[in-house]
Amino acid sequence: MAMVQEKSDQITRRDPNAIEAVVAALAAKFGNRLVTSRAVREQHANTTSWIANEPPDAVVFPQATDDVQDIVRICAKQRVPVIPFGTGTSLEGHINAPYGGVSIDFRDMNRVLAVNAQDLDCVVEPGITRKQLNEHLRDQGLFFPLDPGADASLGGMAATRCSGTNAVRYGTMKDNVLALKVVLANGELMTTARRAKKSSAGYDLTRLIVGAEGTLGVITELTLKLSGIPEAISAGVCPFPSVEAACNAAIGTIQSGVPVARIELLDELQVKATNLYSKLALPELPMLFVEFHGSPAGVAEQAERFGEIARDLSGGPFEWATKPEDRSRLWQARHDAYWAARGLRPGAQALATDVCVPISRLAECVTAAQREIAELGLVAPILGHVGDGNFHLSLLVDMSDAAEVKAAKTLCERLVERALAMDGTCTGEHGVGQGKMKYLAGELGGPALAAMAAIKRALDPDDIMNPGKIVAI
Amino acid sequence: MAMVQEKSDQITRRDPNAIEAVVAALAAKFGNRLVTSRAVREQHANTTSWIANEPPDAVVFPQATDDVQDIVRICAKQRVPVIPFGTGTSLEGHINAPYGGVSIDFRDMNRVLAVNAQDLDCVVEPGITRKQLNEHLRDQGLFFPLDPGADASLGGMAATRCSGTNAVRYGTMKDNVLALKVVLANGELMTTARRAKKSSAGYDLTRLIVGAEGTLGVITELTLKLSGIPEAISAGVCPFPSVEAACNAAIGTIQSGVPVARIELLDELQVKATNLYSKLALPELPMLFVEFHGSPAGVAEQAERFGEIARDLSGGPFEWATKPEDRSRLWQARHDAYWAARGLRPGAQALATDVCVPISRLAECVTAAQREIAELGLVAPILGHVGDGNFHLSLLVDMSDAAEVKAAKTLCERLVERALAMDGTCTGEHGVGQGKMKYLAGELGGPALAAMAAIKRALDPDDIMNPGKIVAI
Repeated sequence: MAMVQEKSDQITRRDPNAIEAVVAALAAKFGNRLVTSRAVREQHANTTSWIANEPPDAVVFPQATDDVQDIVRICAKQRVPVIPFGTGTSLEGHINAPYGGVSIDFRDMNRVLAVNAQDLDCVVEPGITRKQLNEHLRDQGLFFPLDPGADASLGGMAATRCSGTNAVRYGTMKDNVLALKVVLANGELMTTARRAKKSSAGYDLTRLIVGAEGTLGVITELTLKLSGIPEAISAGVCPFPSVEAACNAAIGTIQSGVPVARIELLDELQVKATNLYSKLALPELPMLFVEFHGSPAGVAEQAERFGEIARDLSGGPFEWATKPEDRSRLWQARHDAYWAARGLRPGAQALATDVCVPISRLAECVTAAQREIAELGLVAPILGHVGDGNFHLSLLVDMSDAAEVKAAKTLCERLVERALAMDGTCTGEHGVGQGKMKYLAGELGGPALAAMAAIKRALDPDDIMNPGKIVAI
Repeated sequence: MAMVQEKSDQITRRDPNAIEAVVAALAAKFGNRLVTSRAVREQHANTTSWIANEPPDAVVFPQATDDVQDIVRICAKQRVPVIPFGTGTSLEGHINAPYGGVSIDFRDMNRVLAVNAQDLDCVVEPGITRKQLNEHLRDQGLFFPLDPGADASLGGMAATRCSGTNAVRYGTMKDNVLALKVVLANGELMTTARRAKKSSAGYDLTRLIVGAEGTLGVITELTLKLSGIPEAISAGVCPFPSVEAACNAAIGTIQSGVPVARIELLDELQVKATNLYSKLALPELPMLFVEFHGSPAGVAEQAERFGEIARDLSGGPFEWATKPEDRSRLWQARHDAYWAARGLRPGAQALATDVCVPISRLAECVTAAQREIAELGLVAPILGHVGDGNFHLSLLVDMSDAAEVKAAKTLCERLVERALAMDGTCTGEHGVGQGKMKYLAGELGGPALAAMAAIKRALDPDDIMNPGKIVAI
């Protein structure tokens, strides 16, 4: 029923004349930086999940903020949607164009505009990826810590309130964006904050835009907090007899105040997949990958405490990777977990979903998910940023098998229901996009959803900023 | 001119019949928990600055969230303002009632509703003060770290996006509030988030309400992040030959990654005042008060690094307070700085103002302020949360001397202008209230101010939620 509604809405909202006028105006201005080929348009829509690919009508490649203002003004005049595009790695259909419109690809806006080393901040364009940024920063002994696995763009990471493996220590994008420049629905450029480390000057527009998934405006510049590259880093892996024991070790580590930089759970199936894919010989048991940052003495102390906690829970032996190349190999294996999971079932579609619960409920939530995966006869290794109570399923689904697809959808529904019943959230870091809109009312209730819709209407009355994501208005 | 405008607006917006109807309805429901005496009303308006005392028409003391919903509904029906009140310690006129209305005093809503020790969080009512909360938590080895000096209420601290002495390590209220319950202008109760440590589920309503100063809704419940009481704490004071040297030591400490818990600057005049008031014998030089939290070894390492940085800048001797009672005495002296400053000039009004700049500009900003204080012939000791680039002036002004009042206002204007010119903010932690509304456009520009006004209109179309603060609509 909902699908029928969406389709009909989509048809009534697409105005071919308006789109034609926009494409003509953009072509006149941007020449061959406007592309309308089907292949390119499809690459700029969802390609990472079972949400259908809904391509935009055109893709444009701006080179500066005022290009973006021009694009938005041209689209606003005809009430044609604009959809910001970074690297296309988002997981909930954020970049789809259900009502058509223009995808703004930030590929060419990837400059570092300033590095203020004394202030531990930098100013960048939204198209720069985290690896490009860290390459640029390395000589100065600085880095941008957030690491979602994919080499995502900073604009996309801000838009989805991304976090990743070391958010447990360094926070999420909400904690690491100091200020933004944002093109609003009327084409005006909004500055959300100055470069001071903190401010009480009015509503927190920075945090409002971080996580708004492009539905309130298009980010064209980011001021980011940086961190010093730690003097010492140590990393290791530690197997546990059960997922409960591994989760409890993560809880104990956080509670005892160890400032762990990463603490990642791989369940037994994910370890198996990783061994196969990354040619490792880890014991096929639930495993924590951990990393500590600090002074040499501080890192040694953290590792020792973690080791004690793990031993008390029958974890171990704890294997260290002290050499940078071994550490890289280990974390590369963790980052390749998605590809490793796919290797478990070649030809199947891999679908990633995430929830986040209060850490005290984590073991219960993960083990219930494992039980359900088994009951439904599915293949779905589990990965978790367990220091934050956040974990992922990688569902490997034969999309031609209707019963299996249905079982997979049931699994996802129940995962969210269980997380909500535990006072958790339907998404810790992937965002809402199209895929999780249906869960927001259950998570936050009517007044919160009404407030979100009121804010959306206030800032984007014609619903042209990435419409059909987060909240319907 | 602006004043005249405000006054006339105030007259046209006050409807005596509406207020009478509200007072009657509230009296019927709340009995003697509704107070209309002049003395109590004046206590519930601004008493901490040179902004005039603008009392509400009545003060009501709710005991539960549904009381607050009833109050808001009664007021909304008559379009009469509601002004939330915690402890009255805010510094920019936040609790004034320029258009009359009802002050909601949260004195009786000060319960701890839950402590989730495993999750390092708790749920509280907004009237609880930080000292009451920490008293409650101590047995469990937990504490709520934020410390603005005054024993403020948690509701007020969230509303003003407060930070204080240890924000440099633990963050500000934006970082330490997990979720809120908020009564909206229509009387509905909004839940901003669940208890998960992180979430990407839609707009960040929590961060929108934190710092909104009651202008978008009334906070009736807070879920707060807690920290473990550090195993070891050490504190000390270190004099420096100049304010520049002290600021540079703070910059060096932050840059070298020392996770200092507090790093507070007192300028020479503030040290003199503190010696007199707190009976200390500190050398009358610019001084850093520092505190380190961690494991015993970690704290020793941090202190050693700070000592090296200080020595390189000709700071020292660094005096330690290892005994808890000495440490308390030291920090009590720091917290009494406001009273100590007042002691420098008995009978004068003490006015606190704050700005925050990128830390690389801090020394320049503080010394320029000192120069200006001298040029204008004013008495204004300086205190700073210098690890964040945030500092305060305590202006001691003879309010009967018009020339001096004018000079003090000039000083405040120039302080803000200079902070903005350095890419800083007009307020790091005190908030906007009435006092700093005029600076927001200069700080953030027209589009940001328009966005704030649009959000305000969207959530509070009749402008009844603490009107006349942050942004005019």
